[in-house]
Amino acid sequence: MRDINQFTITEAVKQSFKTEEGSRLKFLLESFIEHLHDYTREVNLTHEEWMGILMFLYDCGKISTPERHEFILLSDVLGFSALVDMINTRGGATEGSNLGPFYLDDAPRFALGGDLGKGRDGAVLLVQGQVRDSLGNPIAGAVIDTWQADSAGTYPIQEQASGQDKFDLRGVFTTDADGKYWYTTVLPKPYTVPYDGPVGRLLRAGNRHAWRASHLHYIVRAQGYRAITTELFFENTDYIDNDAVFGVRRSLITKLEPVKKTDTLPPTDVAPNARCTFDFVLAPEG
Amino acid sequence: MRDINQFTITEAVKQSFKTEEGSRLKFLLESFIEHLHDYTREVNLTHEEWMGILMFLYDCGKISTPERHEFILLSDVLGFSALVDMINTRGGATEGSNLGPFYLDDAPRFALGGDLGKGRDGAVLLVQGQVRDSLGNPIAGAVIDTWQADSAGTYPIQEQASGQDKFDLRGVFTTDADGKYWYTTVLPKPYTVPYDGPVGRLLRAGNRHAWRASHLHYIVRAQGYRAITTELFFENTDYIDNDAVFGVRRSLITKLEPVKKTDTLPPTDVAPNARCTFDFVLAPEG
Repeated sequence: MRDINQFTITEAVKQSFKTEEGSRLKFLLESFIEHLHDYTREVNLTHEEWMGILMFLYDCGKISTPERHEFILLSDVLGFSALVDMINTRGGATEGSNLGPFYLDDAPRFALGGDLGKGRDGAVLLVQGQVRDSLGNPIAGAVIDTWQADSAGTYPIQEQASGQDKFDLRGVFTTDADGKYWYTTVLPKPYTVPYDGPVGRLLRAGNRHAWRASHLHYIVRAQGYRAITTELFFENTDYIDNDAVFGVRRSLITKLEPVKKTDTLPPTDVAPNARCTFDFVLAPEG
Repeated sequence: MRDINQFTITEAVKQSFKTEEGSRLKFLLESFIEHLHDYTREVNLTHEEWMGILMFLYDCGKISTPERHEFILLSDVLGFSALVDMINTRGGATEGSNLGPFYLDDAPRFALGGDLGKGRDGAVLLVQGQVRDSLGNPIAGAVIDTWQADSAGTYPIQEQASGQDKFDLRGVFTTDADGKYWYTTVLPKPYTVPYDGPVGRLLRAGNRHAWRASHLHYIVRAQGYRAITTELFFENTDYIDNDAVFGVRRSLITKLEPVKKTDTLPPTDVAPNARCTFDFVLAPEG
């Protein structure tokens, strides 16, 4: 390895890892080393730029906590997270989208027609739809886990210091015998991803904003099916065409409609003044 | 941007950065985004692997301090640092090699023939040579900044807790009218890079050791010339062919020779029992 030069070093580094022939680790490492080295040669990276990259990663590490994961945020704004979601979407199933940083296990369970809004400010939104398999058969007993921001664009978990309950605006629903679900909540508003750290510096350097289009988060699970993690967006709302984390897909945009007196609506605890419909499609496991 | 898919997302992310046309930042960002996305598609990265990468970076951030920079270490073991050194070596000049984490500004100045060893354990090594330009002309007044491990493979800066002076085994020398330099020190021994963190986990996963071949560090500067950062290695010593950070180059290996009574040596404060010769070549600035 004493005769390495800028072209042969890539093979030398690959060979230095003695991983199992044909293993996934070997494949992941070798492709990564190739891309890292190709990038370095392609852009003719200087020492100052190299140190700039390493100090950027160092700064991302310093600002990160279990609640503020700057590397996930970096992945989000580079479309890395969205691309992984896209690659792992099964044909025929609802498209995946960002999990985001605010998911909590053990959200409270609600009966169908229940209300997540608890009288908060904002339009009362009826969300309804069906969970189906790829052949169109309804899936009874599917579990819909949802969480969202409020009408100010804030998640209650971010406002615990001012007395909010971190489990607010979260709920778990189970589909009925026809695979149907329905509930009410407040219409969420857009918010910014955190931009007071190194990722914010990157956005400013690239003249990019930090806004996300307003959305509802979902994880939908059913026995025998592959769980999906996705988001639901609303037509003609702000940032729908330039979401900071590339979460929007055409298939995930629903239409907000005002509730009219003549509408036939499912029974809800609270009367809605807007409504939207979205059906989830699950692909079989394995 | 609502119609993005796993192929069009790369262009969408590139377009989202509104950087100056033709700027270096635009070039660096766009090439990085392309390689990151190509990698993700090529290996068909799963969500678990994606999260594994992000948690690895998170862990690197958590263990890092101003003295322990895990991202530089990661760069080192992936040959990224060495590749940047290679790319930035000027034709005709001495090849560059790792700066490493232990450099300090303001090392003590010594007269030629001075001794860095201060009676420490180990062989007393005479290091001598000349600093020249690419045409072979000697460079008088060139400044040689050197630092190294001791005969146990330890840098005094790592042993401050046990009373060692962090400036020990460091020195700055100035070449004479013929561009010559010479000094004595102790022969350094191999040591491991830190392997108690995430990078150590990576090395173990790849069945790699953490040893560096023994070496002397140098930064050589002269007015009107481009400074070089490099390392000097010794023929037939351990790890010379599998240095953990890919620092060794054939042109940076010198021969250790025992001192014989018949040798004509330059005047030194301490009598050496081994010697080596290395000439540095600097390329013009700009």
